[in-house]
Amino acid sequence: MTDMYEKRRRSLGTHLQDQSLSAVLVTDPANVFYFTGFNSDPHERFLGLFMEASEGKTILFAPALDKDAAAESSDIEKIVAISDEQLPFDVIRSTVGDLSGSFGIEAKAFSYFRYNEFRTAFPAAEVADVQAFINKLRKRKTREEIAALKKPIEIIERVLEEGIKLVKVGMTESELTAELEYLMRKFGADGPSFSTIVLSGEKAALPHGEPGERKLQVGDYLLIDFGVAKDGYMSDTTRTFIIGEASDRQRLLYDTVLASNQAGIHAVQAGNPVKTFDIAARSVIQEAGFGEYFNNRVGHGLGIEVHEEPSIHMNNEEIAEPGLVFTIEPGIYIPGEGGVRIEDTVYINEDGEVELLSTFPRELRILG
Amino acid sequence: MTDMYEKRRRSLGTHLQDQSLSAVLVTDPANVFYFTGFNSDPHERFLGLFMEASEGKTILFAPALDKDAAAESSDIEKIVAISDEQLPFDVIRSTVGDLSGSFGIEAKAFSYFRYNEFRTAFPAAEVADVQAFINKLRKRKTREEIAALKKPIEIIERVLEEGIKLVKVGMTESELTAELEYLMRKFGADGPSFSTIVLSGEKAALPHGEPGERKLQVGDYLLIDFGVAKDGYMSDTTRTFIIGEASDRQRLLYDTVLASNQAGIHAVQAGNPVKTFDIAARSVIQEAGFGEYFNNRVGHGLGIEVHEEPSIHMNNEEIAEPGLVFTIEPGIYIPGEGGVRIEDTVYINEDGEVELLSTFPRELRILG
Repeated sequence: MTDMYEKRRRSLGTHLQDQSLSAVLVTDPANVFYFTGFNSDPHERFLGLFMEASEGKTILFAPALDKDAAAESSDIEKIVAISDEQLPFDVIRSTVGDLSGSFGIEAKAFSYFRYNEFRTAFPAAEVADVQAFINKLRKRKTREEIAALKKPIEIIERVLEEGIKLVKVGMTESELTAELEYLMRKFGADGPSFSTIVLSGEKAALPHGEPGERKLQVGDYLLIDFGVAKDGYMSDTTRTFIIGEASDRQRLLYDTVLASNQAGIHAVQAGNPVKTFDIAARSVIQEAGFGEYFNNRVGHGLGIEVHEEPSIHMNNEEIAEPGLVFTIEPGIYIPGEGGVRIEDTVYINEDGEVELLSTFPRELRILG
Repeated sequence: MTDMYEKRRRSLGTHLQDQSLSAVLVTDPANVFYFTGFNSDPHERFLGLFMEASEGKTILFAPALDKDAAAESSDIEKIVAISDEQLPFDVIRSTVGDLSGSFGIEAKAFSYFRYNEFRTAFPAAEVADVQAFINKLRKRKTREEIAALKKPIEIIERVLEEGIKLVKVGMTESELTAELEYLMRKFGADGPSFSTIVLSGEKAALPHGEPGERKLQVGDYLLIDFGVAKDGYMSDTTRTFIIGEASDRQRLLYDTVLASNQAGIHAVQAGNPVKTFDIAARSVIQEAGFGEYFNNRVGHGLGIEVHEEPSIHMNNEEIAEPGLVFTIEPGIYIPGEGGVRIEDTVYINEDGEVELLSTFPRELRILG
């Protein structure tokens, strides 16, 4: 594993040299994990990996109370603690000395506040955005990462399989959520990868609704969209069920979304623009007459973060390449009536072909 | 409640006029909730409240798939959806027209990437930081907010009371975490407010460690640091227990931390610099000879976010004022041996006096 992080840092170092940047300060916690193996949520505290392009000085600046954890989980030899009373850029400045030239930062992670602190600390230096390069590196998953990603996927599918056995009429969304999250921990998850979505009946029409006190009834849609974090990688899976008995209308919606999900997955192929995957899935829903009820992108990248690049939407001309991992999650959401979403995770392998990482059955299941 | 959000927006509007700012774009999701009542995690999607200083044009820009939820939970009349295929600043620009003058942003929430997008969209406008003003508003909690904050505190204390009844020798940290998180949902929480910390034995020395497969043994420290989110407000509470039987050494550590916690709480008083609260708590630990084992600040603000202002550390000269809510959480962490932390939440009330919001007993409890 140590090799893996070092290799990634070497790629970044090469990029610095190619772009004539003197150094880089990586501050997005997900990227710090990617380049060092230290996985943490520093909240408002400062965490940053400093790397020089030339002589290769590499320093991890970490909150004082996380210093031991950083030393244990990363392969970085020099870790400098920043205590709660210190200003991060005072510590950085006194550790690395004066800097000049262009200095890489991640523009989406570096706040305007940090930018101003940086300019005060290093008046002779300028910033240059290395976000696109890092995103590109992270997008191309290795087999090692696919193995890491399969763990949270396996856990969430096991949770779903056991969890739906507990579903019964009269149970609230919140109660089912409690059971599902209990199973996550039981099956070894580090926690949910995002706020668990359990929506029933007409609430299933809300793409981002929250589980509440609504009780499951016969004839309800039951939409479960959830995932877990395991060793720094995330899963994100959706299945929709029907409680008790499905109407013809519900079967129509379900079959349409399932056909859309399958069309999306089958469209995945290296060399094609990612928008074609969205369009393939969307066309099925449009042709069935439900186009107006599917108004978000068909998928998003997944890995260290639950949403990362690429964004699979109908205007994204980006050409799909081997290594990409993303979701295919078409849905139909009819306000006041209900909704169906089926979400799987796919990988474009070394041959440019789609590999389905999700294995949970997709046929309609009636519960309770 | 609608009144409350409108009143907050009026305060912000007054600030814009005082500072001669033409408008503001609030993009931190916690601040959008504070000013509109719409509580959401947009992930990488754009969410922003736009407000003009003069004529009072107020627009909430929200991800398309959250538009209905935003309309339902906020009192903002004009909500503009941004779909996944659109660039946020294209939509903003075409909605609000050309802007000039100074434009308020939150420097800590506005990324350097957004800053560049902003400059491209509005070349005649400049940005001005309104973060400090918003933080100052949010810091001063009203009685209404204290009532909202008491809900997650009550839930977490109930979880703790019921949860420790389940503790037994041989149980793993992960198993106990699963039980605790199950109880959170059962008692009405919207979810954990941060990643639950359950650490046993020598692991209790890690201020930010993660629950794992270590089994509880007689003589262990058991440190539980956790909280829940409820209707947009957060709790954060720590208690440390001993399994089976406590040694004299453990009692010494516990009593020292408890005395420190009490000293910190009793020091809280409007009109004094917040550093005095840290120093009061820290002195107790230093005088007992454990100073080197307490190397982080004594507390942090708490409310819509689990860490917010003020930061209670030994160099913070900020004068405490009525309305502040923060934690007092001294600890002793001895590597390889174990640790104790006792964390409570306090409020400085209208009279400038400390009010303890935490009610869970503090005396040493032996479990299992």
